[in-house]
Amino acid sequence: MDVDEEAIRAVVATWHRATAAGDVQAVLALMTDDATFLGAGRPPMHSRAAFEQALRMLLATHRVQSSGTVREVRVSGDLGYAWTDLTVQIVPSAGGEATVRTGCALSIFVRSADGRWRLARDANMIG
Amino acid sequence: MDVDEEAIRAVVATWHRATAAGDVQAVLALMTDDATFLGAGRPPMHSRAAFEQALRMLLATHRVQSSGTVREVRVSGDLGYAWTDLTVQIVPSAGGEATVRTGCALSIFVRSADGRWRLARDANMIG
Repeated sequence: MDVDEEAIRAVVATWHRATAAGDVQAVLALMTDDATFLGAGRPPMHSRAAFEQALRMLLATHRVQSSGTVREVRVSGDLGYAWTDLTVQIVPSAGGEATVRTGCALSIFVRSADGRWRLARDANMIG
Repeated sequence: MDVDEEAIRAVVATWHRATAAGDVQAVLALMTDDATFLGAGRPPMHSRAAFEQALRMLLATHRVQSSGTVREVRVSGDLGYAWTDLTVQIVPSAGGEATVRTGCALSIFVRSADGRWRLARDANMIG
């Protein structure tokens, strides 16, 4: 497997692990400052700061367990994309029924100045 | 504007025009053989052939008028992406109420062997 493809797959795997561990800083390190999150039926979420606020609010009362299968990764120059099938379980910390959501995501990665690949744009089609 | 960015914006503009004109062949020429269309709440549509079948079925009974604003295009090597705000009007040919759907799309473009940019992956978040 290509070294860049491997690096992008590692970002996805680290994202799942860090989210499950509630390690917000580790998740934020995986995205660009201007990371933008697109989804159906809601306005785009611009910037890492906006993502941080939403994630901290969710993790204050829930655990998030996500897993996924990377269906495809492709890279050219400093740009790449990954298409992923995802399952996200949102579990109330106080106990109670977990919410399970499934769907796919199409994510754009860029190679930053430090050589690391980071998520820059994300289209979330989890329903 | 970069020549590649301009070419990708031209693909998007041609897509809208050809769809409105019901020119299926012109739309198909804008995508790769293995073009894959992802959306929320439905399985991925793989291949240009599957897209053609779905588009012909829709155009048999409707006109499709789409417009959009390209929010961003970025290219590296032979890979690029465009993030677009879309409005799609689906009008019954026999008359009657049009259905209007809005949302954004994140689309991956590749530079084919003939030098042309074509749509390869599309995440449709129109609700």
